[in-house]
Amino acid sequence: MRARYKPWAADLIAGHPEIVIPNPEALKGKWHEEFGNDRPIHIEAGSGKGRFITGMAQANPDINYIGIELFESVIVTALQGALEPEGGIPNLRLLQVNAQELETFFEAGEIDRVYLNFSDPWPKTRHAKRRLTHESFLKLYERVLPEGGEIHFKTDNRGLFEYSLTSISEYGMLLKDVSLDLHANEPEWNIMTEYEEKFLKKGQPIYRLEAKFQA
Amino acid sequence: MRARYKPWAADLIAGHPEIVIPNPEALKGKWHEEFGNDRPIHIEAGSGKGRFITGMAQANPDINYIGIELFESVIVTALQGALEPEGGIPNLRLLQVNAQELETFFEAGEIDRVYLNFSDPWPKTRHAKRRLTHESFLKLYERVLPEGGEIHFKTDNRGLFEYSLTSISEYGMLLKDVSLDLHANEPEWNIMTEYEEKFLKKGQPIYRLEAKFQA
Repeated sequence: MRARYKPWAADLIAGHPEIVIPNPEALKGKWHEEFGNDRPIHIEAGSGKGRFITGMAQANPDINYIGIELFESVIVTALQGALEPEGGIPNLRLLQVNAQELETFFEAGEIDRVYLNFSDPWPKTRHAKRRLTHESFLKLYERVLPEGGEIHFKTDNRGLFEYSLTSISEYGMLLKDVSLDLHANEPEWNIMTEYEEKFLKKGQPIYRLEAKFQA
Repeated sequence: MRARYKPWAADLIAGHPEIVIPNPEALKGKWHEEFGNDRPIHIEAGSGKGRFITGMAQANPDINYIGIELFESVIVTALQGALEPEGGIPNLRLLQVNAQELETFFEAGEIDRVYLNFSDPWPKTRHAKRRLTHESFLKLYERVLPEGGEIHFKTDNRGLFEYSLTSISEYGMLLKDVSLDLHANEPEWNIMTEYEEKFLKKGQPIYRLEAKFQA
């Protein structure tokens, strides 16, 4: 997700190193220290403007959240969201890095869950490797998750969801839960992303799955 | 699927033992002899009025087809369809039996593929065991299929499809192919069932999957 160039973004990000961690590789293996507790850490790969991850962090204070987003002009909106509540959101951090480099920032098993929301569908077959549910990414998530770790994925994109179901199955993961129209019976714990609200208004179904790595 | 009582159905069925096999348990292990060739045998569990299985048999003369349907008033329509073409449909048989008793009629590995089309969704949780993609049915299909045997399943019912994806995954099967809107890019080999045409006309998506048993 790209957005208009924001000349002030770099300064705002640099001014909040307590939220957008400047050298996340230094915290590899030390994220629980960073959060100051031993609670589970959930990450979102491609957190965009941050509505999901900030919403989740506020709704679930007993879980630590890390949003990962490469684009400065996008992550800065997530930062603004994180700064909004009185006292900030203590259980939230943001990383302006590439999700492909997860292993640079996290030890094996340091992360408890990976969220993927409305990832770029990369519809052309020759771009399949870039999809966040491609085998190479699943391998990456498996390395930073504990045994039995889960990915939770939602999208409006039918092609990406069809691809993901088979990719996840072929990887040997277990499909725990699948919804082919999340908002037909929206669970009370659902936090909508910006995209989700937009596509929902168009009447398009939102697809969602939970899948688990197996030994 | 039930239909109006047809007093003439029993007589028509009894008059065509070459199509609706009267004692299928006697052919257990001998279906290739019955067809007079060694070609693959594909069955449809719950073949209803038979449009799919008769269509498949005519489109694929190198494969043998067996439609399984318990209800007399329904299977008789399939029989009428089978009698329609000049010279009949030599690679088609029908069994008026319960799909739960597959092992009574087929040896292990005697069947090469199982089709499930628009099966009863049994939406109540307490009826989950009756769904044709419940673990107990998957176990049954596995017993009559060879290693790597496949089930091909389509339905308009979202709840049943969601259930089936997780049931199939939990069973340890591999999802080979998934479509969440079959008619968005209808494959040229697709044969529509009566239900499929009806739901398609209502604008409802048709869901489809192929899954494979693994060693």
